[in-house]
Amino acid sequence: MTEGATGDGDDGSSRLFHVDGDLVPADEATVNVRDRGFMYGDAAFETLRAYGGTVFEWEAHADRLANTCEALALDHGLTRRGLKSRIDRTLEANDLEDAYLKLSVSRGVQPGTLDPDPEVDPTVVVYARPLVRGGLDGEPVFEGPATVRTVETRRVPDACLPATAKTHNYLPGILARIEAREADPDADEALLCDADGHLAEGATSNVFFVSGNVLRTPSLDGPVLAGITRRVVLDLAAEEGIPIEEGTCDPADVREADEAFLTNTTAEVRPIGTVDGVAVGGGPVTQLLSRLFDRQVERACYR
Amino acid sequence: MTEGATGDGDDGSSRLFHVDGDLVPADEATVNVRDRGFMYGDAAFETLRAYGGTVFEWEAHADRLANTCEALALDHGLTRRGLKSRIDRTLEANDLEDAYLKLSVSRGVQPGTLDPDPEVDPTVVVYARPLVRGGLDGEPVFEGPATVRTVETRRVPDACLPATAKTHNYLPGILARIEAREADPDADEALLCDADGHLAEGATSNVFFVSGNVLRTPSLDGPVLAGITRRVVLDLAAEEGIPIEEGTCDPADVREADEAFLTNTTAEVRPIGTVDGVAVGGGPVTQLLSRLFDRQVERACYR
Repeated sequence: MTEGATGDGDDGSSRLFHVDGDLVPADEATVNVRDRGFMYGDAAFETLRAYGGTVFEWEAHADRLANTCEALALDHGLTRRGLKSRIDRTLEANDLEDAYLKLSVSRGVQPGTLDPDPEVDPTVVVYARPLVRGGLDGEPVFEGPATVRTVETRRVPDACLPATAKTHNYLPGILARIEAREADPDADEALLCDADGHLAEGATSNVFFVSGNVLRTPSLDGPVLAGITRRVVLDLAAEEGIPIEEGTCDPADVREADEAFLTNTTAEVRPIGTVDGVAVGGGPVTQLLSRLFDRQVERACYR
Repeated sequence: MTEGATGDGDDGSSRLFHVDGDLVPADEATVNVRDRGFMYGDAAFETLRAYGGTVFEWEAHADRLANTCEALALDHGLTRRGLKSRIDRTLEANDLEDAYLKLSVSRGVQPGTLDPDPEVDPTVVVYARPLVRGGLDGEPVFEGPATVRTVETRRVPDACLPATAKTHNYLPGILARIEAREADPDADEALLCDADGHLAEGATSNVFFVSGNVLRTPSLDGPVLAGITRRVVLDLAAEEGIPIEEGTCDPADVREADEAFLTNTTAEVRPIGTVDGVAVGGGPVTQLLSRLFDRQVERACYR
């Protein structure tokens, strides 16, 4: 759920970043090489979307950031309101209404070596770039259905790093993407399994599929990030009376499904075109949930 | 093996860092917030020691860095000689003979999102700080035998991130240290097991123990970093005719051992005082290997 399956190739060189309380040009947006975020990936982050200047599901993202920081014993000492105001200032300074946002909180520079000091002077970074709104009247942010590959790279077990923690330790996801691209240069996303070979999630997305009218997705009992979009989609499906099964799933289930889609903050609901070369595609349930999601954004951000 | 069990609390604020080809004061030693090293921990590193101005086991470290970069598909395009010259310039600029060194190579800033671009403009950072020589005539760099705790946090499996890769994704090691310190505020090191509960390694060290005159250590078949000091010690033991058993070990084996010690580049050979509160300590084999190691440093760096 770091970022969407689609990248706009934008390098952000013309924009302002919010770094440690200051708005700075991209070139000057830096952290010290002794920042633990750089040295160890010792940082928490959230990817967010703003629609019409309003951050969608801010409270849910703030809750998850708090969970991550708790898992890392990272007591950054910032208020939720303080974090939100940095985001709002970044949007304003860049004159952005519809945007992709990334908020990172690292443990900062500390004396000594690996052992973290409980006294934290965090490094807080907000990055924003324009992202087309999508939604009911807009164009989707992705180019057509996703090409997905199941990979051998495994999702990190909870016993190593809890899946509740959304951190800058993102190499397994990168290796998964490299593996997927090696299998198919057009691959948009890699599907990772847990140590037992059960389906977990995409490198930056949650995965859903429809089998015989039941909406299925790997449960959070496995090493699966509690995606905000995942939760919104499940709530919408429940309201709509769609049967839901959160449980143990296998890659073959997705390949054999009637419909399948990915969710994340950036791409929202994106149909899966093929899994491992097998055509799956969206369908009526995917389309309905996508439309309901758009309406939810409309209600939350545009009135 | 990142860093020794001992930190000197030095924050490096008065020294020069080597960043991307330039020697810069500590305050100005920065990377862009869009550097993949910061965003994802997408970087390789080595911890090195210089004794009398000579980097110990440089070729072995350079080999391992190459292995890490291969595992990450990070083709940085720098020669071994080029990397070495950055290290030498950093030592010289800081007027250091006996030093701790850290060399990091990140994938740098790239357009797009998670998928790495094969075209890499790497960020190369060399950091150096004084570290007493230790060795035959010096004081050891650590304060007495190590206090060690076995933790529940597990070593990341090879299927997620190969143990051959020494990367900036270091959160499991940090969580392990936090867990160890919670169990015992004096803990110097955490011992991590693999997913099956077998002993793997310390957060920044390899572990050895002696049972009935046999020198034992977890084999590299498990998720164990191929420590340079580990290999030097094994070579020295073999030359000395000490029986060696690299294989599957359990935490109980260390607790019940006659002697036990940790190895890493910074601390070299450090006896383990207690494991989980059980006294183990060094002994004649530990002492012999420590002395042979010192002689090896002497031969390699001081003649």
